[in-house]
Amino acid sequence: MTAIAILLFDGVEELDAVGPWEVFSWAAREGEPPVPLSVFTVSRDGAPVTCGKGMVITPDHSFATAPEIDVLLVPGGQGTRPMLKDEEMLDWVRNTAAGCTWVTSVCTGAMVLAQAGLAKGKRITTYHSVVEPMREWSDAEVLSDVRFVRDGNLVTSAGVSAGIDMSLWLVGELAGVDYARAVQQGIEYFPAPPYLYEV
Amino acid sequence: MTAIAILLFDGVEELDAVGPWEVFSWAAREGEPPVPLSVFTVSRDGAPVTCGKGMVITPDHSFATAPEIDVLLVPGGQGTRPMLKDEEMLDWVRNTAAGCTWVTSVCTGAMVLAQAGLAKGKRITTYHSVVEPMREWSDAEVLSDVRFVRDGNLVTSAGVSAGIDMSLWLVGELAGVDYARAVQQGIEYFPAPPYLYEV
Repeated sequence: MTAIAILLFDGVEELDAVGPWEVFSWAAREGEPPVPLSVFTVSRDGAPVTCGKGMVITPDHSFATAPEIDVLLVPGGQGTRPMLKDEEMLDWVRNTAAGCTWVTSVCTGAMVLAQAGLAKGKRITTYHSVVEPMREWSDAEVLSDVRFVRDGNLVTSAGVSAGIDMSLWLVGELAGVDYARAVQQGIEYFPAPPYLYEV
Repeated sequence: MTAIAILLFDGVEELDAVGPWEVFSWAAREGEPPVPLSVFTVSRDGAPVTCGKGMVITPDHSFATAPEIDVLLVPGGQGTRPMLKDEEMLDWVRNTAAGCTWVTSVCTGAMVLAQAGLAKGKRITTYHSVVEPMREWSDAEVLSDVRFVRDGNLVTSAGVSAGIDMSLWLVGELAGVDYARAVQQGIEYFPAPPYLYEV
């Protein structure tokens, strides 16, 4: 069983967490995965968290009750800022990551991984407004204009909705590309943004 | 103030609700909308709902406490099935829709709108596996292979992730296309599914 844990905390950006949740939980529970998968949410104390835009989500587990974790996903959101000085949280992320086969982030979750010392010298990406600041303070090589970056077992996504792309890719790594495509069809992820966008 | 309400219920599919929530709440709260917008979640009794894949979300309002609603969004998920025989729920949807400028759905939420009598003779879409059944039992013209369909003030989306496309389009209608593009950039919705898909 590969256990995927999505970290929740006050100020987590809703889609950073729920986009990957939808991908992984569809993979684990709706389809018939060629390898067993599980996914759960976890927060420090297991109490309901208030997300960045105000949605209240009750985590599946606290740090104390969480099963062993194989894949860690750290979402972003304004709530990552206080985490950068939260030694208890950084210790948990560091210690959990040490036992993981994959360590991942969405958006500004990359700041937490870097602050925990997990991105030293590695190629990563993050939310567009944080790329330049992270180039200043972090010890990672921060790429821009990519949806996600894999360096070894570290996989970091760009902002918010990019976590969906990254999670589908990871389903392909965990359970095969054919199965990832089945999940893609399950959630009808054939996106078509309605307005043309010129940068 | 344009008030957008996302209906929650046991068995609602997580991304059906949270994709639009992210788009609308970013539009309402993170950016500087040219017109005032608000967004909230609402369920029958306001108690926490257990979503289709097990996530527990606490709604902002019950039917009794909800402010006046201008835009109604009905997500899909397995929880729509019992709603098709739930006269109290269908009455609420029908009565709320009567006062709305826009009535919208994601995925199998279209079944609820149709069952409430809101799609008679209208062009709609829904989750791919429900297109044929709805052609049998509903009084709507059910289209396939489109992300969303607008017919008058009724806007129905295809499955799960299609709600993000529809919601961004609606932000463009409510607050202008330039603002919708700003929201698109805010949530970095420049999707790139990782595996090529051949139907």
